[in-house]
Amino acid sequence: MNQDLVLGIDVGGQSSKLGIVTRGGEILAGTVVSSLQDNLSDFLDSLTSAIRSLISQVSGQGTVLGIGIGAPNANYYKGTIEFAPNLRWTYVDGQPTVVEFARLISERVNLPVTVTNDANAAAMGEMTYGIARGIKDFIMITLGTGVGSGIVIDGRMLYGSDGFAGELGHVCVEQDGRQCNCGLKGCLETYASAIGVARTARQMLADSSRDSLLRRLDAETISSKDVYDAAREGDLLAKEIFERTGTILGRAFADFVKFSAPEAIVIFGGMAKSREFFHDAMMRSMNDNLMLVWKNRVKILYSSLKESDAAILGASALAW
Amino acid sequence: MNQDLVLGIDVGGQSSKLGIVTRGGEILAGTVVSSLQDNLSDFLDSLTSAIRSLISQVSGQGTVLGIGIGAPNANYYKGTIEFAPNLRWTYVDGQPTVVEFARLISERVNLPVTVTNDANAAAMGEMTYGIARGIKDFIMITLGTGVGSGIVIDGRMLYGSDGFAGELGHVCVEQDGRQCNCGLKGCLETYASAIGVARTARQMLADSSRDSLLRRLDAETISSKDVYDAAREGDLLAKEIFERTGTILGRAFADFVKFSAPEAIVIFGGMAKSREFFHDAMMRSMNDNLMLVWKNRVKILYSSLKESDAAILGASALAW
Repeated sequence: MNQDLVLGIDVGGQSSKLGIVTRGGEILAGTVVSSLQDNLSDFLDSLTSAIRSLISQVSGQGTVLGIGIGAPNANYYKGTIEFAPNLRWTYVDGQPTVVEFARLISERVNLPVTVTNDANAAAMGEMTYGIARGIKDFIMITLGTGVGSGIVIDGRMLYGSDGFAGELGHVCVEQDGRQCNCGLKGCLETYASAIGVARTARQMLADSSRDSLLRRLDAETISSKDVYDAAREGDLLAKEIFERTGTILGRAFADFVKFSAPEAIVIFGGMAKSREFFHDAMMRSMNDNLMLVWKNRVKILYSSLKESDAAILGASALAW
Repeated sequence: MNQDLVLGIDVGGQSSKLGIVTRGGEILAGTVVSSLQDNLSDFLDSLTSAIRSLISQVSGQGTVLGIGIGAPNANYYKGTIEFAPNLRWTYVDGQPTVVEFARLISERVNLPVTVTNDANAAAMGEMTYGIARGIKDFIMITLGTGVGSGIVIDGRMLYGSDGFAGELGHVCVEQDGRQCNCGLKGCLETYASAIGVARTARQMLADSSRDSLLRRLDAETISSKDVYDAAREGDLLAKEIFERTGTILGRAFADFVKFSAPEAIVIFGGMAKSREFFHDAMMRSMNDNLMLVWKNRVKILYSSLKESDAAILGASALAW
């Protein structure tokens, strides 16, 4: 049997996940390498030996045609990873730099390599294998440690004039609001990411003296998981934290709709697990902030892909 | 000589302008009919007789292949004008309705007819004949009585899943801000349109007792033209009104860039005449609100088309 295969790589801050994927979205073989390396050539060495080992594992089952990589701050046009604060091996003299990642991998393994940012990869995965199959216009929002986005227009990824389109985690939702890692203030990411939820928790705990299960924890170390657990136990303040998050998300979504009029917004990432607590507030707020022509017409969908596979599938979808 | 020609129609609230246009963007013949008619079939009659008369005027010079129409609230996919508050002939029983405008015209004159909203038409015109020739990714912002937008991605107009994409005049720039005609609050249009500038003038005159040439006028009837005239005479308050407008525009533009990463934003419309007073504040504010990757990289351009021709050229560009 000699079917066509592709290799998907999800480069994360902690680890990079690799998988060999069939046209149908089945992962035939997978492995993981650590991303916590200080030196670019060391990291490339581990990655290429993992790639070679995976390819030899599936040698009887098909031919690997190419490699798709999703990575933070990756540029589809240039094949680069640019100034990624969380990837130590992109640093030179203590500063993150521009790494020609696609070229470096391609030279080593002699296969075509395409890179894109991780949220775009997630959108590709959802469009190719997931809940967005058949939807030609949608916006993927990844709610994780940060907030990322991938925008699909008429069935194609939106890369923009420079390859950096779709940074919706950094639209301003609060003038002179919370300081963001990107240097700006009031970015959606500072409110709607896992870290944003934890910041909202600390703020709301400080702003009132209301009783809450969260007061048993050290405020400085509260995580979005703690807020979720408290909400599950019926804690009213914890529920309100998620409602406030949903309200902010919905308001931002309404403005995204005014831009590209998508059929759906697809939510992916760890925060989606808490949707029972923010979904209603988010829908209400989105529809309150839409004109008549869109009110109650834009679908909100949640990713249907298993989270551990989704990133690999998304990256692999790039390579087809 | 039998060259290809198209007919462009710009349907405005007051008047509808028609012109027959060559491939090179030359207007061979033009005319105007009043849009201030109460009855749909009366309006269609005046329009079709004007169309026939123009076509017969150019009968020796070429063949008219089709008609492109830019109109408020027009939908490219459906060929409709939907709920346009400023067009009386779309009203039934005192309410604006959905008019199948493309079909109605096409049946009467036996030519293919395409419609789109007026800001999209302006973007098409700029891309085909104007300053945006050769630019594949740009956002057109029309600053007139209202604020409209047309988004071009990879050389193609963005219509979205429903034909209504690009309503950037209605993104929220101020939470619980000024009431907008669309029913929402804090829309960009309520600050950055000609009417928005007049509202800012009234607000700033009321908020302080600072001296200003504008105090000689009846506050209720102040127009953006009055503010412009005062600024030209060196009036500091008038200048500050435009600076505040520029600051709000720049902040909104920064968020648009995070969506589609355009090479340029192109400004069109009556307000562009006042650019000497808002341009610097707008640029500063846009760049202050952009991440490093875009800071000082996005061009702001002003339409190069003669305003009276631009709308016809834009509409005609649709028909090619």
